[in-house]
Amino acid sequence: MDRSNDGDFSRSNGADFLQLNAADVPAGGLADWLTDQVRTAISDGRLPIGSRLPATRQLATELRISRGVVTEAYQRLTEEGQVSGRGRAGTIVVAAPAVAPAARARSYEPPQMTAPGLDIFVELRAAPAHIDLTPGVPDLASFPRAAWLRSERAVLNDLEPAAFGYGDPSGTPALRRAVSAWLARYRGITAHPDEVIIVAGVSQAIALLAQFLTERGIGEVAVEDPGSLGSRQHLQEWQLRTPPIPVDSGGLQVDVLRKSGAPVVMVTPAHHFPTGVVLEGERRRDLLQWAAEGGLIFEDDYDAEHRYDRPPVPALRSMQAEQVLYAGSVSKLLAPALRIGWIVPPAQHRDDFIALKRRADLGNASLPQLTLAHLMESGELERQLRYVHRRHRTRRDALATAVATYLPTATIHGAAAGLHLTITFPPDIDDKALAAAALSKGIKVHPLSWHCQLPHAPGLVLGYAARTPTALTEAIQTIATLLTPSPTT
Amino acid sequence: MDRSNDGDFSRSNGADFLQLNAADVPAGGLADWLTDQVRTAISDGRLPIGSRLPATRQLATELRISRGVVTEAYQRLTEEGQVSGRGRAGTIVVAAPAVAPAARARSYEPPQMTAPGLDIFVELRAAPAHIDLTPGVPDLASFPRAAWLRSERAVLNDLEPAAFGYGDPSGTPALRRAVSAWLARYRGITAHPDEVIIVAGVSQAIALLAQFLTERGIGEVAVEDPGSLGSRQHLQEWQLRTPPIPVDSGGLQVDVLRKSGAPVVMVTPAHHFPTGVVLEGERRRDLLQWAAEGGLIFEDDYDAEHRYDRPPVPALRSMQAEQVLYAGSVSKLLAPALRIGWIVPPAQHRDDFIALKRRADLGNASLPQLTLAHLMESGELERQLRYVHRRHRTRRDALATAVATYLPTATIHGAAAGLHLTITFPPDIDDKALAAAALSKGIKVHPLSWHCQLPHAPGLVLGYAARTPTALTEAIQTIATLLTPSPTT
Repeated sequence: MDRSNDGDFSRSNGADFLQLNAADVPAGGLADWLTDQVRTAISDGRLPIGSRLPATRQLATELRISRGVVTEAYQRLTEEGQVSGRGRAGTIVVAAPAVAPAARARSYEPPQMTAPGLDIFVELRAAPAHIDLTPGVPDLASFPRAAWLRSERAVLNDLEPAAFGYGDPSGTPALRRAVSAWLARYRGITAHPDEVIIVAGVSQAIALLAQFLTERGIGEVAVEDPGSLGSRQHLQEWQLRTPPIPVDSGGLQVDVLRKSGAPVVMVTPAHHFPTGVVLEGERRRDLLQWAAEGGLIFEDDYDAEHRYDRPPVPALRSMQAEQVLYAGSVSKLLAPALRIGWIVPPAQHRDDFIALKRRADLGNASLPQLTLAHLMESGELERQLRYVHRRHRTRRDALATAVATYLPTATIHGAAAGLHLTITFPPDIDDKALAAAALSKGIKVHPLSWHCQLPHAPGLVLGYAARTPTALTEAIQTIATLLTPSPTT
Repeated sequence: MDRSNDGDFSRSNGADFLQLNAADVPAGGLADWLTDQVRTAISDGRLPIGSRLPATRQLATELRISRGVVTEAYQRLTEEGQVSGRGRAGTIVVAAPAVAPAARARSYEPPQMTAPGLDIFVELRAAPAHIDLTPGVPDLASFPRAAWLRSERAVLNDLEPAAFGYGDPSGTPALRRAVSAWLARYRGITAHPDEVIIVAGVSQAIALLAQFLTERGIGEVAVEDPGSLGSRQHLQEWQLRTPPIPVDSGGLQVDVLRKSGAPVVMVTPAHHFPTGVVLEGERRRDLLQWAAEGGLIFEDDYDAEHRYDRPPVPALRSMQAEQVLYAGSVSKLLAPALRIGWIVPPAQHRDDFIALKRRADLGNASLPQLTLAHLMESGELERQLRYVHRRHRTRRDALATAVATYLPTATIHGAAAGLHLTITFPPDIDDKALAAAALSKGIKVHPLSWHCQLPHAPGLVLGYAARTPTALTEAIQTIATLLTPSPTT
């Protein structure tokens, strides 16, 4: 502790390093015992390659045994090839740990398609499949690897060393500026960069909302029905109830929300998940009125940039700054694996959400934030969006054609935007069983009923963005064979 | 919703996009009103550059006004230069939003050095300073930018597209393997890669621990005293009490812990923060015995790799797998801004912690994880560690010399390892006032009393890793002038 003690840097405590205790030294067989102890320390990694064994004199003193015993043990280990004497440099560990770490590995759990638990998406990802139509991802093969690296190099060339330290928990100023400009341009939202908080995707936004509400004694968030299973499960994991509010062809039935008495609602107004409905004008105004009367809206703007027919409708947040928590991310723009999103919380709760983000993880990593900001400000992200837009559209058309051709009884929903189609079937179909059967044929899809708490027509949610037209067609052909009773039965 | 509706992609709802409502149309001055509405939509970003105004006929129908009014409004906007008619392509927005986003910017808050709140570290970072001796960061100027980019390029060259999708919430297999090997080599821990969970730094590890404990009705975590203010505040932000357990020259006083009845303790056994003490052998064994009797140890192995005198003592986790939650990170190895750390939870609680990490944010971003794994497996991280080790050592020596020269009444602690020195003063010094005075002279330091709940000698915690010997000497000279009463008083 004091200068004289720490100052000479030569103090060592070999027995302690080996976790040996003089009291544990046996009465006889000392050299065998010590050799075994050191061998174990090497094999289980406590004595790494290149490390030095304690000096023989020191270890002998600490263990209250004779120095000859220690020399003998070191000699045997040298002969075994595990250590090597290097004269005055001491005795060095040279062999790799001989024993593989033994531990209970996680076992593979097949997905519970008919009764999806909290692990369902992890299970589904782990399941082997030939064609993956899981919704929620853009064309991952189009990730702009070269542009990303170029942006990152440009960022690293200019970066102050202090930028590698702890940062602003609300996000780097550069990305908050870029997101502010992006939101103005694409989503009609005028938010100062200081009103933007960078988060680890919309999932973390949901986690922060849940904590915000729980601290205020609020125990429920109304959700759209149909509505994302993932979001609903996430709220439930945070011990929030999720009363369902029906969605029809005009979007959320705001009158039902009003009657429900729920204080908060989570909505996807620009492009409802999974049906693709746009919240119609009168309903928008009614929902904003509900918020003006004290309701809180969580606006999950999950894929608003992906419209094929016309510019997207502006975000609700552009109309109402006090009662709307806006959340977006790059998960559908670039890649979910980046884990970068943003929220624009109600102005009066901004500091609360910054504190929640700080408490969660001190803020997102800086380098990816700065790289993304560079991509946005250089126009690369817009170019990327235009590029994938064309690919996505071609794929959507291929999927719609395949459905019309091979699944004539199905109805297509939500084709005007997004990265997935929802199809519905006549009521006698069990969509969970169908999805399970599809998985057994190597095709991953979501049954629509996963995303419903209320009774709804059966269906499938089909992500098309990451698959080629050929694969999409093949997948639908396979699903069609599962719907057609085989001629022999 | 149905195929016929979404299928032709030509549907547009112009009035809705502008958030106009037929009921809001005034009785007179229609062209003025409409021009103003569209102008506002452009200036506040709802109508971005390049977007198309609704067709005049369509907008007129929706608002139940004459088409001539719409044509007149569009004409005025054309004359103002905000939109441009393009024949059959329609009328396009061409002008940039004229109004800068107006919002309450966050104001600068000077650090409350004498009464540090939850924002103290954010405030301290924002404060202007000439020489920053804040502890807790390595030599940030040495961040291996070129090696990082090389690793990232290598990773991107080989990556499957699916790796850009949602990933394993416990971390990418490649990084869990690399960390498993690192822990075996440097920390004596034998943990299967499946036992490692990647988190967003030790801060997130604390957050997950807090949630784990709260769900089990545990409301307190004993902490070392002195001990990190940041960790203590973080636990308190999660509504946990932090009873202090004194640390002396042998480390944590385990007998006091035992008497306290606290069920959980957070410790820094390899290199105590901030005093640098190594938990001595007998105390280690006693602490592990306490754990074997049911206590839970959170082992914050925050800078174990940075020892100058000898290999670091093995982690407690290497001795006890059932009652130790091990946490480490790259914050002191590479950079806090990476926000990458790892935990090895007690084996029986691994699945609980994976679920908590998934609930928090679905898992860390993949690309930085894979890049770090590549740095670790290629040996670059070890090279980096050796490189900064020499620099850190030189800086430590310079700081120790400056303290001995200019602050002769101070005692140095913890010089054998780490990235900071702690110095203590005779009892008549107010270290918070001294740190505040230093800040006013442009020198950032932590007063030791920030890191104490119990009475302790006054002192300063001085991070040296990120500063040159010249800057370190200058900082100590400046602090010395603050300790010496000026001759005129």
